[in-house]
Amino acid sequence: MTIDGSILIGARDVRRDAVFHAVDAASGAALPQPFAEANEIDVTAACVLAEAAAEAIGTLAPDARAAFIEAVAVAIEAIGDVLIETAMAETGLPRARLEGERGRTTGQLRMFAAEVRDGGWLDAAIDLALPDRVPPRADLRRMNLPLGAVAVFGASNFPLAFSVAGGDTAAAFAAGCPVVVKGHPAHPGTGELAARAIVRAVEQCKLPAGTFAFLPGRSNELGAALVADHRIKAVGFTGSRSGGLALVEIAARRAEPIPVFAEMSSINPVVLLPAAMTARASRLGADFVASLTLGAGQFCTNPGLVIVHEGGGLEDFLEAARGALDVTMRQPMLTPQIEDAYLDGIASLEWNPAAARVDGGGPVHTSERPGGVLFQTTAAAFLNDKAFGREIFGAAAVIVRCSSFEDMHHVIQSLEGQLTATLHLDAADYQSSEPLLHLLQQKVGRILINGWPTGVEVTRAMVHGGPFPASSDGRSTSVGTLAMTRFLRPICMQDVPEALLPPPLKDGNPWNVPVCRDGQGSG
Amino acid sequence: MTIDGSILIGARDVRRDAVFHAVDAASGAALPQPFAEANEIDVTAACVLAEAAAEAIGTLAPDARAAFIEAVAVAIEAIGDVLIETAMAETGLPRARLEGERGRTTGQLRMFAAEVRDGGWLDAAIDLALPDRVPPRADLRRMNLPLGAVAVFGASNFPLAFSVAGGDTAAAFAAGCPVVVKGHPAHPGTGELAARAIVRAVEQCKLPAGTFAFLPGRSNELGAALVADHRIKAVGFTGSRSGGLALVEIAARRAEPIPVFAEMSSINPVVLLPAAMTARASRLGADFVASLTLGAGQFCTNPGLVIVHEGGGLEDFLEAARGALDVTMRQPMLTPQIEDAYLDGIASLEWNPAAARVDGGGPVHTSERPGGVLFQTTAAAFLNDKAFGREIFGAAAVIVRCSSFEDMHHVIQSLEGQLTATLHLDAADYQSSEPLLHLLQQKVGRILINGWPTGVEVTRAMVHGGPFPASSDGRSTSVGTLAMTRFLRPICMQDVPEALLPPPLKDGNPWNVPVCRDGQGSG
Repeated sequence: MTIDGSILIGARDVRRDAVFHAVDAASGAALPQPFAEANEIDVTAACVLAEAAAEAIGTLAPDARAAFIEAVAVAIEAIGDVLIETAMAETGLPRARLEGERGRTTGQLRMFAAEVRDGGWLDAAIDLALPDRVPPRADLRRMNLPLGAVAVFGASNFPLAFSVAGGDTAAAFAAGCPVVVKGHPAHPGTGELAARAIVRAVEQCKLPAGTFAFLPGRSNELGAALVADHRIKAVGFTGSRSGGLALVEIAARRAEPIPVFAEMSSINPVVLLPAAMTARASRLGADFVASLTLGAGQFCTNPGLVIVHEGGGLEDFLEAARGALDVTMRQPMLTPQIEDAYLDGIASLEWNPAAARVDGGGPVHTSERPGGVLFQTTAAAFLNDKAFGREIFGAAAVIVRCSSFEDMHHVIQSLEGQLTATLHLDAADYQSSEPLLHLLQQKVGRILINGWPTGVEVTRAMVHGGPFPASSDGRSTSVGTLAMTRFLRPICMQDVPEALLPPPLKDGNPWNVPVCRDGQGSG
Repeated sequence: MTIDGSILIGARDVRRDAVFHAVDAASGAALPQPFAEANEIDVTAACVLAEAAAEAIGTLAPDARAAFIEAVAVAIEAIGDVLIETAMAETGLPRARLEGERGRTTGQLRMFAAEVRDGGWLDAAIDLALPDRVPPRADLRRMNLPLGAVAVFGASNFPLAFSVAGGDTAAAFAAGCPVVVKGHPAHPGTGELAARAIVRAVEQCKLPAGTFAFLPGRSNELGAALVADHRIKAVGFTGSRSGGLALVEIAARRAEPIPVFAEMSSINPVVLLPAAMTARASRLGADFVASLTLGAGQFCTNPGLVIVHEGGGLEDFLEAARGALDVTMRQPMLTPQIEDAYLDGIASLEWNPAAARVDGGGPVHTSERPGGVLFQTTAAAFLNDKAFGREIFGAAAVIVRCSSFEDMHHVIQSLEGQLTATLHLDAADYQSSEPLLHLLQQKVGRILINGWPTGVEVTRAMVHGGPFPASSDGRSTSVGTLAMTRFLRPICMQDVPEALLPPPLKDGNPWNVPVCRDGQGSG
């Protein structure tokens, strides 16, 4: 499989005169391969084909749909090492991380395939007619339908698992939706390889050409045109708050507004309780920095805020954190733009009189690679300045020193919605932590005890979402099998004859899916 | 239980100098009882109390929560005939209809209570730790949490089942959310009685005073202030498209945007297939008019559009429809404003050169009561003028005469999202109806075969929602037990010690709810 810089629409490679180049993340130099910049005609073509494919994809039997998703996983594995090497060059992420991410990508595809086969996602429910009731009750049967064509905007920080063939695409295919991917310009070669793998699976499974399209490009107008196209029925996005909100607004202004599931912004508070700090402040400091600096801090779940009580090991925590920062290997950031935004975010805190550097305080940027940075402030200063609560994408964190549990409570109460909250506590902390835990539950999609938020397991029970602005729709997750429910809606069939019922609702249950009959059984 | 025109906030009756009067629907005269007009201070007070109650209500064990909802049903029954008499005066709806609606209201409360006890709505899922895996997997447990305080805007056309103690309120209580109701000014006395029943149940069950509040008033500003209050976390609305969209916009502009579940606008297409028309055109005409004129056409599911092939019984259908209209009893509309809007809608079609009256053509308005009206047009004219697709709330319908199946397909394809679509067909129609059926599935929340859309059964399998603008969120329903999922969101607990886990996720499962463990079991 080779990269030639094409747009992929249906079974065709499309070239355009307008091209762009990816940047070598390590050197900042442009990479040689030119990539076609998709335009509005490509958007229309991709959406027309996707709409035409929607019924065929949406009514595929679970086995056939699952087989397609598994074929995508096999095709990604078949790309071979060029996928890893391309991603390394385009993102600066190390080989081991990318190999792990490839495994995660194919693993989540196979997990969705298994979920599709299970059929529980159809949420089939049958309330049989009650002809003798006064008035008689009709035969009522409900199941989930796919929403239709889905636009996916991949993330820069997971070029495989959250991009072209990543979680949103897998979830949309699992739900029975065609997918049009707006390719991320930071990793167009990686994206094209993954896109070609999906196209191969589409062809192998003899699915309609509109099942999938790949539209690479740099412009905001390209993404805006895609979300505005009336044939698109939902959007999955992972990225910045400003980018996500722009798509939310475009979607809301359509003649037919559509849901946008944007995973956007989170500072992932970590709350350190006294008994845990007394027992292991130094280890917590070192482990915290390991999570903070993982992947140059470029994780949605990066722990950017520490809320801690004064005294009781805090100085040991800070010393250990400083020591760990000093010996942390630096890695290039994903793009020059991300690095600039990171340095700007740090500069704004350095100019903030209420913030003080508590790492070594040396230059953030050395030998072409920025390092991790720690600031501290007080609860009152934090509450007085919303800037402290804004995400700085990268390995920067603010430590809020609180002189009472009440202050910790106020700081937590002031937070916006978050993907995660972490508490470090021992049994002696249970009582004092309980009100904080209850408050944090109102703010986040995932609570962790005595762990670190980076690293998101792909399972049935995972929630990677949370109240705004962690997600534009706090009732959803973008990781885990529950993610496919974002692209489904219920429909009720009243007195529909057996011959016209869709398979999951037929009396004979030919797909053998779980059905709740008159309130009994699954669902 | 007596009506005194109070605002009900917590356990207190609040009076205001600003008052308004309900209108006797039959005579148009103001009714004597003055009702306090809630203001922004009342909004704040209600929301502060609701926020303070959210944790207690949200963590109630299923039995206690269900007992409260059942106590509301009992308290509504205990109001006695004054509830029916008040509603008759304020809405003009006949006694039998209102008695039936009361039964539906208490029935749906009890259905939600049973659903709460079942516990399946928690969607509890546990993925146990895999400590020996490389890397080890954490213990992950997921459940649904209530969103927090919910604002409910009742509908004028169902003063009991879709108003103060109606479906949205019942669903929100079932999900564990406090409720603040903006009382509909068309039935303030009916609303106050239902509100007092809820307050009585709150007191009986010793729940926090903020569990429920009732804010009557006429102004748009009152509703806007309620939706804008940062303590409100979701909105349920049934009413006009303009009203629903205004609330959607206010909610989207908040610092923390929140979901608005607005059930708004639908013309509920009816498609008549040839074999069914050949077999029973006259009966279809008469039955159609019965559904169209039920409750003066004031149903969300009123069949306002008929799509039919030329010939084959169409003239018989029209003649029977005309005959049925002539003998239909007229009843007053709910409010003077609704009647004015109805007459305006008819006038706009009468001035439309592409529309022709096909009922008797006589005056619409006689003896203080408007009657039903039928227009006909062609497929081309329908497609050429979006005005034909707009809802006229009341007993008006447009019959689109199509000269081919292709035209029927185009007319259906041009439709916006709908609550329902109905097909009348016989076995000989199955083949030709299948593409229309598939297309309609993309447009609606409920498909009916050989029935009529008015009358919405409250069951597990019901869907009363649909793509925009039938609902502002097409992935939801506002009738049936599935409605409670609108007010829930998932949260994941990672490595949380048994002592700190919420009951549904504890190893011992003290609430005895369905739990999916490692992919096995319910869910």
